Amino acid sequence: MAINETHDPNLRSWVDSANDPNTDFPIQNLPLGVFIRPDQDELPNIGVAIGDQILNLSEVEEQLWSDNFFDEVADACSYESLEMMLILDPGEVSELRRRVSRLLRADNKSDERYIAEGCLIPMDEVEMLIPHFIGDYTDFYASVYHATNIGKMFRPDQPLMPNYKWIPIGYHGRASSIVPSGSEIRRPSGQTMADGAVAPSFGPSKVLDYELEVGFFVGNGNEQGQPISIAEAENHIFGLCLVNDWSARDIQRWEYQPLGPFLSKSFATSISPWIVTTEALEPFRVPAFQREDGDPQPLAYLDSPQNRERGGFDIKLEVLILTEQMRQQNIAPHRLSASNTKDLYWTFAQMLTHHSSNGCNLRSGDLLASGTVSSATKDSQGSLIELTERGALPINLPTGEVRRFLEDGDEVILRGYCEREGFRRIGFGECRGRILPAS
Amino acid sequence: MAINETHDPNLRSWVDSANDPNTDFPIQNLPLGVFIRPDQDELPNIGVAIGDQILNLSEVEEQLWSDNFFDEVADACSYESLEMMLILDPGEVSELRRRVSRLLRADNKSDERYIAEGCLIPMDEVEMLIPHFIGDYTDFYASVYHATNIGKMFRPDQPLMPNYKWIPIGYHGRASSIVPSGSEIRRPSGQTMADGAVAPSFGPSKVLDYELEVGFFVGNGNEQGQPISIAEAENHIFGLCLVNDWSARDIQRWEYQPLGPFLSKSFATSISPWIVTTEALEPFRVPAFQREDGDPQPLAYLDSPQNRERGGFDIKLEVLILTEQMRQQNIAPHRLSASNTKDLYWTFAQMLTHHSSNGCNLRSGDLLASGTVSSATKDSQGSLIELTERGALPINLPTGEVRRFLEDGDEVILRGYCEREGFRRIGFGECRGRILPAS
Repeated sequence: MAINETHDPNLRSWVDSANDPNTDFPIQNLPLGVFIRPDQDELPNIGVAIGDQILNLSEVEEQLWSDNFFDEVADACSYESLEMMLILDPGEVSELRRRVSRLLRADNKSDERYIAEGCLIPMDEVEMLIPHFIGDYTDFYASVYHATNIGKMFRPDQPLMPNYKWIPIGYHGRASSIVPSGSEIRRPSGQTMADGAVAPSFGPSKVLDYELEVGFFVGNGNEQGQPISIAEAENHIFGLCLVNDWSARDIQRWEYQPLGPFLSKSFATSISPWIVTTEALEPFRVPAFQREDGDPQPLAYLDSPQNRERGGFDIKLEVLILTEQMRQQNIAPHRLSASNTKDLYWTFAQMLTHHSSNGCNLRSGDLLASGTVSSATKDSQGSLIELTERGALPINLPTGEVRRFLEDGDEVILRGYCEREGFRRIGFGECRGRILPAS
Repeated sequence: MAINETHDPNLRSWVDSANDPNTDFPIQNLPLGVFIRPDQDELPNIGVAIGDQILNLSEVEEQLWSDNFFDEVADACSYESLEMMLILDPGEVSELRRRVSRLLRADNKSDERYIAEGCLIPMDEVEMLIPHFIGDYTDFYASVYHATNIGKMFRPDQPLMPNYKWIPIGYHGRASSIVPSGSEIRRPSGQTMADGAVAPSFGPSKVLDYELEVGFFVGNGNEQGQPISIAEAENHIFGLCLVNDWSARDIQRWEYQPLGPFLSKSFATSISPWIVTTEALEPFRVPAFQREDGDPQPLAYLDSPQNRERGGFDIKLEVLILTEQMRQQNIAPHRLSASNTKDLYWTFAQMLTHHSSNGCNLRSGDLLASGTVSSATKDSQGSLIELTERGALPINLPTGEVRRFLEDGDEVILRGYCEREGFRRIGFGECRGRILPAS
């Protein structure tokens, strides 16, 4: 992929709100999502976010692009999910972006523009859905800062396992409980063992946490037994979204040995609904993580010049909290931390290549997530267990409230965006979820 | 569920091979599966195994049961997978079994019998498929003997983790790489760290193993946030199959901390293609595992009188090996071990209830497996790592070959069956897989 006309920072749209310098969705972004209008009895449609509007691609296809029977790009727009979009080749995704970009440009005075105006829907009138069926969900552990912060709590002498700097550690997550941003999150119950207790007990988690993550969706998959090389990996990554891997730390602590986290994570995982294509993110590629002197270089199967030079992404992330009391007092969400995906020890391409290196078949639409994205400093830690050091350092909120972990009514808001001199800001929108009391 | 007319041991079928006392598929079994005929250009069909034949339920439905528009039992037979069968309620599954049983009985002299004869296909003319889409696959660790055997190798002082006897330990497996019996298994490559090495290397696994397991498919699922109680659990278990959770022990050893097994397992999992319904297994229910004095009783959410008295299953399991040399010399497969699901520390109902106890939504068709089924004795261990004590005690085969772990060309065969005085033998068929060299 390369910088092309769709990235031009001087492009403006006839959709006014897309020209706001603070919008997540300028004409240079064009992320894809799936929505329904709750007040209308219709099937889900594919849309592109543009400012505070959604361009209904299904209607665009019907009214403008349906003449050509062999037009796979147009055809993919007519489904109720992104399933056919995901398997377009990168050139076809590029073609789709070019078409939508030209349609939405301010200098477009053609009849098509007026038709497209009829295909706009205000974003606040729709409900966003999971964009396609997710067959398998894998969560990595790619932030060396996060792994070190967590490791220190349990193994002060050896925070990082010996394998960490060699192998992209990951585990299979639960696909069924992935929900779109805005879904309420029921506090899970589970088995926990209190300090000093002689027997565990079962009840609502008392140590509920979020994890700030970025995920990517697999475009074209691979056949079982046929790994994807690091040179090919980028062609299999369709686009990115924000992920909140909700975690019940007390359940996790008691259950996780020896097979890893299970029910402490599987009650819910929230994702932001707009998939930002890797083409849109092209200007924000950066070199892979700069390893410290003495750290090993990646083994050959995880190494390529392209990955070294352009395998990372510079995506600014932040997590905010809005408590019930803040909501009642009309206080704005309070920022808990800010980090960046460029600080991930492993690139997305390395995660994907490693995942398939044993012959495991990745399927179109699979979600692979980074694990908690923490950067180097204290204010850049992507979970409460890190920020509060397991509750030892409570966080003070503007209302005078304190938080060690999440309480009922708390809403967690993840945000992500890219900024670079000479390019328009590209945003991810939000990934929100509010905690409901245990049932 | 209860014993009913379909379990009557005196029933005989007009399909002669079903009356063979050694068949896995007498008229009392009637397991469901999905097949295609490779020589014919047609969609997959649902079938019932009967002796060495398959009754094509799709044709039976078309020719005998299609009159009644509201007949959900018949309708479920007309799909290309078991998707609609799984969501029948237990009474409807019972009704299906009764209809098929009456159709196939030796004393059935009606016209329907002659139509049914036309719906038979020899089992050796078909290819069996995965019976339905599997959304999520979870693997437990329910054999206390297996957990102890493995634990001893790594922690001789404390083989069992403190949580083991309280919590059904499990982890999310990889759904995409589940394959039906008969599929060849490509030896995986991966990152491993040799003893004494200073750096890991990447290459074909040298320590490839099988795991003898039993799995069950979820029938009706649950909504997110709404756990399934232990009292309700049995109503959500549709049926059982054999599972071989292939494992690359060298990859596993290096990757598994701290998040559990990942690529060491995700290259392939084989399942037997016939789903034996829990109703067919009703005569073989046994009390849950008898815990030793001093062991804790299950917490309330995992305990019920029914589970205590009838939560277990008495299923005899065995694993056999057939090497390339044995195949060439026409030597029969060699039995490596035999165990029994009645020795599992946790029941299937407890696994399912625990899984949903945090609000995790189980979906119809999800696969939950037991983990390696080892019983108490040395010759009942369900994996090579246990049988050979990590390769220290090689196994002698009839050809004079020895095996520490699996070699290319080895075929592993799992078998399972139930026997009890006063009932017909009920079998699972086989779960086979042969190892291909790494690519």
